Parts: sequence; structure tokens; C-alpha cells
Amino acid sequence: MSFILLLGLTAATLTTIAFIPQVIKTWKTKSADDLSLGMYSIFCTGVLLWLIYGILIGDIPVIAANTVTLILALTILFFKFFYKE
Amino acid sequence: MSFILLLGLTAATLTTIAFIPQVIKTWKTKSADDLSLGMYSIFCTGVLLWLIYGILIGDIPVIAANTVTLILALTILFFKFFYKE
Repeated sequence: MSFILLLGLTAATLTTIAFIPQVIKTWKTKSADDLSLGMYSIFCTGVLLWLIYGILIGDIPVIAANTVTLILALTILFFKFFYKE
Repeated sequence: MSFILLLGLTAATLTTIAFIPQVIKTWKTKSADDLSLGMYSIFCTGVLLWLIYGILIGDIPVIAANTVTLILALTILFFKFFYKE
């Protein structure tokens, strides 16, 4: 595997799994007041479009990364509504 | 411009500008307790790798989107340290 491909895959993995600590933190603290509803609304919409884009161009890494990111970001968005102060 | 290209550009724009409402919210409330330090640490590292990847493959959209995202995510990470309880 080339260095550049490995770099891209590492980048994609990090920006995807990054949301896991936020999901765990919010689930544990039951507090989401500081999280921006606007951020997660726009972000989820953008990731959904990335997913559709990946499906249309038939790119497995784009589909895989954005499916996982969408699940994590939607979970945080759900927490934002669920743990309202 | 093709529909698929427009879809990809819209997706990239949304997942980039999504962080603006979080920057504004955290700056206004001066509260970042609910934000995950782990998330923003991993995310900033990932976006930095995306940026290096974009430079190495010479892809302007990847460079542009990740430069803006890195600035916004680093600002939130800075706020997380600065507005510590």
C-alpha cells in the first residue's frame, strides 16, 4: 500500500472515529447544552450528502466512512434533543 | 457542472461550515464543558492528515475544505482549553 493511500485512510479513520469520544461523553454526562444544534444539524445533512455522493460514484471508502460518521453524528444530534436542559 | 460534482461540493461545504455555529456558540457562552476533548483532538489530527493528503495529491477542493475545517476545529479545541471550568 502506498504512503499516500495509507495517509488518506488514516485521515478518514480519524475524522470518523473522532465522534466516538463525544458520543460516550454525552451519554455518560447526560449533558449536551454546550453542543451546537446548528453544527450537528448542518453536519448530519452534509454527511448524508457525502453518503449519497459516495453511492452515486460507487466509492466504498466514502460510503463506509460516511455511514459510520452519520450514525455517530445522528446519535449526538439525538442526545442534543434528548438531554435538553 | 454535473449533478454529482455539485452534490459533492455541497456536501464538502456543509461539513466544513457546520463548525461555524459551534465556534460562535462556544465563544458567546464561554462554556465548553460538554465538548469532548478527545473528539476535537482526534478530529484536528485527522483533518491535518487530510490537508497533508490533499497537498500531496494536489487536490484543491480537499486542501481548501480541510484548511477551513482545521482552522474552525482548532478554534473549538482552543476554546475547550481556554474556557475550562
